[in-house]
Amino acid sequence: MRIPFLLFVSLLLSCLSASAVEPSQDLARITVIVTDYCAAWSEPEPARRLALLQKTWAEKGTYTDPTAIVEGRDALHQHIGKFFEQFPGAKIVLSSGVDVHHDKLRFGWQLVAGDGSIALEGMDYGELDENGLIQRIVGFFGPMPVKP
Amino acid sequence: MRIPFLLFVSLLLSCLSASAVEPSQDLARITVIVTDYCAAWSEPEPARRLALLQKTWAEKGTYTDPTAIVEGRDALHQHIGKFFEQFPGAKIVLSSGVDVHHDKLRFGWQLVAGDGSIALEGMDYGELDENGLIQRIVGFFGPMPVKP
Repeated sequence: MRIPFLLFVSLLLSCLSASAVEPSQDLARITVIVTDYCAAWSEPEPARRLALLQKTWAEKGTYTDPTAIVEGRDALHQHIGKFFEQFPGAKIVLSSGVDVHHDKLRFGWQLVAGDGSIALEGMDYGELDENGLIQRIVGFFGPMPVKP
Repeated sequence: MRIPFLLFVSLLLSCLSASAVEPSQDLARITVIVTDYCAAWSEPEPARRLALLQKTWAEKGTYTDPTAIVEGRDALHQHIGKFFEQFPGAKIVLSSGVDVHHDKLRFGWQLVAGDGSIALEGMDYGELDENGLIQRIVGFFGPMPVKP
């Protein structure tokens, strides 16, 4: 029964290598976009934060996490601003590589509090628009839940 | 610096408990939907597989993974059928709880080969329609990539 298993895996991997997985130059570009998007969640100064969102986030992009639904770049800019008013010094730091296929992606992040401790970890699912900007993020908090 | 950190976490958790996180009865219902959807990927008999998709998958739902984009329930039914023609005896098994907020979800899965070995692990991001059926899955293969 080992041959079907190995055949299975090798066919899966060959499908993957022939598929629409982004070439490495695109992965590098997308990793910069995601890193700069996280930097926007780490930038309390409004003009610098807006500049980071303008180069990473689609004008009508939607952000959803367990606590909020935010529609549009300007609204996200304001939303992050309120976050900093309440929690000065917090940062969002990319904690994984960016996994991309087609125009979809996922990545892990850490929310680092002002004292440097990790307040929360999670992952985001995302989608890119035709210009390579993030048009959608759906965030999840904490690790994947354990099977009941 | 410990007080801001604890305040931060407690406010985050209070936001979560007051948010649109699905109540437990919905989580139980959605977990059944996802389990039955995985069962469709484990059911080689076409009529039984179609019945599982009819109660879990929206008629125009879209499925995307690194190797395929499949649009519509009938096309997904055919797609899974081709999977079984090539890999008889394979199963998709839910490997985590289902994490849900708003109409978005994530879960982990294992692809178990015909000999019982784990051929692949991954996670799916998903969305539910207004009837509680899955209208979108975007799958990712393997663990979250390591930070470069």
